[in-house]
Amino acid sequence: MQKPTSPPSDELVPVGIVGGSGYAGLELVRLVVRHPRLRLAWIFSRTHTGRPVRSVHPSLAGIVETAFTATGDPASLAGAARVVFMATPPGTAAELAPVFLEAGALVVDLSADFRFADPTVYEAVYGRAHPNPQLLTLAAYGLTELQREAVRSCRIVANPGCYPTAALLALAPLATGGLLPGDGPVIVSATSGVSGAGSEPGAAYHFPAATENVRPYKVPGHRHTPEISGMLDRLRPGGPRARVSFVPHLVPASRGILATCVTRLSRCGDGDGLAERYREFYRDCPFVRVLPDGLLPETKHVYGSNFCDVAIRWDPAAEVAIAMAAIDNLVKGAAGQAIQNVNVHMGWDERDGLWDVPVYP
Amino acid sequence: MQKPTSPPSDELVPVGIVGGSGYAGLELVRLVVRHPRLRLAWIFSRTHTGRPVRSVHPSLAGIVETAFTATGDPASLAGAARVVFMATPPGTAAELAPVFLEAGALVVDLSADFRFADPTVYEAVYGRAHPNPQLLTLAAYGLTELQREAVRSCRIVANPGCYPTAALLALAPLATGGLLPGDGPVIVSATSGVSGAGSEPGAAYHFPAATENVRPYKVPGHRHTPEISGMLDRLRPGGPRARVSFVPHLVPASRGILATCVTRLSRCGDGDGLAERYREFYRDCPFVRVLPDGLLPETKHVYGSNFCDVAIRWDPAAEVAIAMAAIDNLVKGAAGQAIQNVNVHMGWDERDGLWDVPVYP
Amino acid sequence: MQKPTSPPSDELVPVGIVGGSGYAGLELVRLVVRHPRLRLAWIFSRTHTGRPVRSVHPSLAGIVETAFTATGDPASLAGAARVVFMATPPGTAAELAPVFLEAGALVVDLSADFRFADPTVYEAVYGRAHPNPQLLTLAAYGLTELQREAVRSCRIVANPGCYPTAALLALAPLATGGLLPGDGPVIVSATSGVSGAGSEPGAAYHFPAATENVRPYKVPGHRHTPEISGMLDRLRPGGPRARVSFVPHLVPASRGILATCVTRLSRCGDGDGLAERYREFYRDCPFVRVLPDGLLPETKHVYGSNFCDVAIRWDPAAEVAIAMAAIDNLVKGAAGQAIQNVNVHMGWDERDGLWDVPVYP
Amino acid sequence: MQKPTSPPSDELVPVGIVGGSGYAGLELVRLVVRHPRLRLAWIFSRTHTGRPVRSVHPSLAGIVETAFTATGDPASLAGAARVVFMATPPGTAAELAPVFLEAGALVVDLSADFRFADPTVYEAVYGRAHPNPQLLTLAAYGLTELQREAVRSCRIVANPGCYPTAALLALAPLATGGLLPGDGPVIVSATSGVSGAGSEPGAAYHFPAATENVRPYKVPGHRHTPEISGMLDRLRPGGPRARVSFVPHLVPASRGILATCVTRLSRCGDGDGLAERYREFYRDCPFVRVLPDGLLPETKHVYGSNFCDVAIRWDPAAEVAIAMAAIDNLVKGAAGQAIQNVNVHMGWDERDGLWDVPVYP
Repeated sequence: MQKPTSPPSDELVPVGIVGGSGYAGLELVRLVVRHPRLRLAWIFSRTHTGRPVRSVHPSLAGIVETAFTATGDPASLAGAARVVFMATPPGTAAELAPVFLEAGALVVDLSADFRFADPTVYEAVYGRAHPNPQLLTLAAYGLTELQREAVRSCRIVANPGCYPTAALLALAPLATGGLLPGDGPVIVSATSGVSGAGSEPGAAYHFPAATENVRPYKVPGHRHTPEISGMLDRLRPGGPRARVSFVPHLVPASRGILATCVTRLSRCGDGDGLAERYREFYRDCPFVRVLPDGLLPETKHVYGSNFCDVAIRWDPAAEVAIAMAAIDNLVKGAAGQAIQNVNVHMGWDERDGLWDVPVYP
Repeated sequence: MQKPTSPPSDELVPVGIVGGSGYAGLELVRLVVRHPRLRLAWIFSRTHTGRPVRSVHPSLAGIVETAFTATGDPASLAGAARVVFMATPPGTAAELAPVFLEAGALVVDLSADFRFADPTVYEAVYGRAHPNPQLLTLAAYGLTELQREAVRSCRIVANPGCYPTAALLALAPLATGGLLPGDGPVIVSATSGVSGAGSEPGAAYHFPAATENVRPYKVPGHRHTPEISGMLDRLRPGGPRARVSFVPHLVPASRGILATCVTRLSRCGDGDGLAERYREFYRDCPFVRVLPDGLLPETKHVYGSNFCDVAIRWDPAAEVAIAMAAIDNLVKGAAGQAIQNVNVHMGWDERDGLWDVPVYP
Repeated sequence: MQKPTSPPSDELVPVGIVGGSGYAGLELVRLVVRHPRLRLAWIFSRTHTGRPVRSVHPSLAGIVETAFTATGDPASLAGAARVVFMATPPGTAAELAPVFLEAGALVVDLSADFRFADPTVYEAVYGRAHPNPQLLTLAAYGLTELQREAVRSCRIVANPGCYPTAALLALAPLATGGLLPGDGPVIVSATSGVSGAGSEPGAAYHFPAATENVRPYKVPGHRHTPEISGMLDRLRPGGPRARVSFVPHLVPASRGILATCVTRLSRCGDGDGLAERYREFYRDCPFVRVLPDGLLPETKHVYGSNFCDVAIRWDPAAEVAIAMAAIDNLVKGAAGQAIQNVNVHMGWDERDGLWDVPVYP
Repeated sequence: MQKPTSPPSDELVPVGIVGGSGYAGLELVRLVVRHPRLRLAWIFSRTHTGRPVRSVHPSLAGIVETAFTATGDPASLAGAARVVFMATPPGTAAELAPVFLEAGALVVDLSADFRFADPTVYEAVYGRAHPNPQLLTLAAYGLTELQREAVRSCRIVANPGCYPTAALLALAPLATGGLLPGDGPVIVSATSGVSGAGSEPGAAYHFPAATENVRPYKVPGHRHTPEISGMLDRLRPGGPRARVSFVPHLVPASRGILATCVTRLSRCGDGDGLAERYREFYRDCPFVRVLPDGLLPETKHVYGSNFCDVAIRWDPAAEVAIAMAAIDNLVKGAAGQAIQNVNVHMGWDERDGLWDVPVYP
């Protein structure tokens, strides 16, 4: 690996973060701080206006000594950042995006506001009309490995959901190869660490309730299901629509998603060449590690990093393919992929600021 | 609930445990000690002969003050127990069973030695000839809820594997109803706590490696797969053979299995009546709790208990049924079901010694 | 161990629980259900009046099929229970106790309302006047092993705090022997699982924040400090007052307190005879296990049980004694000790309903 | 924070790692890879000679694609590295150091081989004669904040133990100020995550045994005790010798040490000015964060980073000072401090390669 060379600090690109008090916001700060081409211009939190950032995030003490910006006025912030990350509740990004776009900033939205090109899908999934449907044409779905061209030229990056990132990276080589079946279901069974539910305490996330516990939730009907099936459909245009059954589970970990995807294939009955197909598909994707024979993905092997570890297996008894992927939900599943998309959009090395060894054990 | 009434202690049924140094052996001790009709006559461990039991299991101090039996001679032990539990490595139970059977004891084997009626299946799965195939006709597969009659009249109880217990209780109402499809695969994605791997330390079970980690393993080909599919076939005689794809995952918990089973149905296209079918099927099964609408199984809700919590859902988008089950792998998945089988075999109340509130949180 | 023999169920002693929605309330239910001489007459929760108990505590499904009592009127409940457990916020027990006492019930309070004989100490510690100071003479501090006589004859059991239970059982043999120093401090450094903070979610108990984290809190000045020092003073009447420095830590576990107490001794400079003193002191205490040489207490060895494991060591380099104790904070540190106190008060075997093997692993 | 500027890669300082298969070795790789002035020249492991590094450490896949060096001959490796890290069992570093020293390399030893200036202390603590006592004069005890001058001019860095790092940083401002008492004991009660025990599986570190468990161990007499007391003595030359009682505990976490140190003070009876003293003492120490009022150290706030968070409190009831420190045992307690020492030795910015936001949550 070559060491990065940073530009002089007055040439660093200023970034702003809206929604800086949550886990995704904190992770964005962590990654911006270490990025050789970015600097944190401002960070906004509706509930912590003007307070020192480290009073909310004590882990930042000594490194980030600024305060949450005192102004909640997007217009006054817009000029001070060339990239604006939105780590906000549903609807907020769609409302605030115009002012940042007018100021010429790239908007990277970590919520679902811009993930569906069709506003009626958003309405069906989120139960209300899209606040700003005319912006949708400016947005690219930022699953970086599958969308580099779109990300390069977009004005808004719709950063994918954490589960869809894992599931789609596991399934993409099958989908693009036309290997997903025309009729049969694609089963996605996934586990997530509790940080995926955000930083707000709740009964299901109370330590005594969550430790030593595994629980499925939102079965069926999790909002990430149409995000997965929609993108699968785009990966095989003209093919039959994907019928995805998605079962998420909460596990007693802070970070990490493991997606196990099982499906019959439209051909390739004996699984020959699947591994080779995966290696080929991801050859130019530094963050997707197609594991060699004998290894399966483990969430801990990508902890704190932007890697997605992928493996594919053929089960001859049931005649199904089993595609597995592991990511850190806060990095490749959120803030890391957001940075990766900025790198691609800016024309930088995709690995800038992200090329780090996972924290193990 | 009515309180148990214990018989005078000289009428307690004496039990022996072979393989008492592992987790299943310890759990058997815990459950025998609290059982109103059983008493621990002896406990054997090849590696700890003659040592105080509490030196291996400090949690037993004060309650079990005996030592592991000093003799390794089955013949001398056989007469002292009317029930012999075998918590031993593959092959051991099949070798030792005859001497206990001759002495008139019920043998309850927690290993896989007697789970397959057909010795060629055993050979295919475990890679060697069955040591004592003529004994197989004496054995009943002890998934209690599905096999009460067989357990009552058998000489050997083949206690089921932990994963099969969860998967089969989740799927049985579909299988017996002829609802499993003739062709499509039945996908079983399951998570297990680390105690399922036994008490022997190993790299994958080292705390720093296992905490904050989720990992699939043995994909495909886990030995519990034919145990699941074989029993499904028996539940729908004459039907097409089940094609089960089983993906186990290790999660950072000590106890608990959550099995998520996804399958198309042969009919009943819109899922109507599934919940009612499950409630009806398990109406006389005190340990299977079919959860009401709005609740899904959680491993922590059955922690330390013999309960199996089950829920069934219909996913209209993918047109699949999703059956979920949670058990404590060391209780319903091992020692608890073993006791439950003894209760049934003896004609006692199935709940004797097992009717306890789970330990929560 | 001899098996318990239960009385006919119409002779079971009826108990009521006030504050049944929290962790201590749930643990009381678990222990009452398995107790051979008690039955649950009613369970009250201000916030869940009339709702099925299992809707709040799903782990109870199938075993406890009743609802939280629909009436909040203590008078109407008083007649229906001979023992009333109060698992309530500070002040509630002192307010509600009179009506239960008048009805002739034994009141077992798990809060701190009756722990200090002197109401001015209560006021100093809890920052407000005691609501019913005249009741204090009816109360016994229920650290069972040290207070059996008082518990037998009291009307109110003031069940000890979880930390004081562990610390005092670790230190009592030194205190009663006059071995604590007249001047030097007694250092109590303790860790607790998160269930000790109750079932109410909060930022510090959010799974992602609490896992992989150890944090001291309330240093100095935790409310359990005067409870520890006050009882130490009572154990060595006439001696100098104990100067306890107490440092609690939260650790990523659900259950379990480990108290490590370090102190110079007033004599016995080389630690001779300490272990023997401890064994002698607790000889008639079935739930206190003084560990043999080579073993130290571990919280997991008492998980789910009423045991308190204790060890004493002499550190020659620093010339201090190190006394360590492990308990399950919800059992010996709360509900279990409450039941133990009822057993003692009623003249039953102290072990009734509690004599169970810990749940390990 | 200013972004680092890396030199051209041909000017990067080559480093070697002996003992690369353990946790400290892996962490050294992680930190060398991100360091702007270092490059990994070779990595040696006796047990994995010639195998790809990623086969032992799958988390490194894609980033470190080299193999463990095929030669075990130190002489052939010596010329290829200007800094050699030794993450090896006791005795190995002392044996291998000469060949690296002769080649002009700086030796940074993470074991205890060079931590005691007096070889008789080493012999007393480790139970055997020091293999190379004449080397001890070349070594500096590398608790960076307290030893910068010595580290700058030494040939061997004796990297401190993990517990001593936390305890000494908590106590140093008291010791150097002459505030530790002449007679009374200094109580150090500490918790460590399981990674502190290394990567070798063992019964106490088996996940089911370690989760939900807190256990003290090696009480009294842990080998880190004389390391703590010896350094305290050096910090207050001429004063009375420190009498440290050290009680380590294993907690269910992978990383993190929390040291709670309690002591009477020789003066300053009411604790006035303690906080100010700490802030002043660590003013020029970027990695030691003296927490403001209201905050106490938490291990998670330093996770994956080289920070040491410190707080000091006065307990008026017991008249003791309570000094607390939190570190990541694998970073500031091992590999991170090793890198920090290299930075100091080389005259670089102490923060080079280490100035990162902790991974939270």
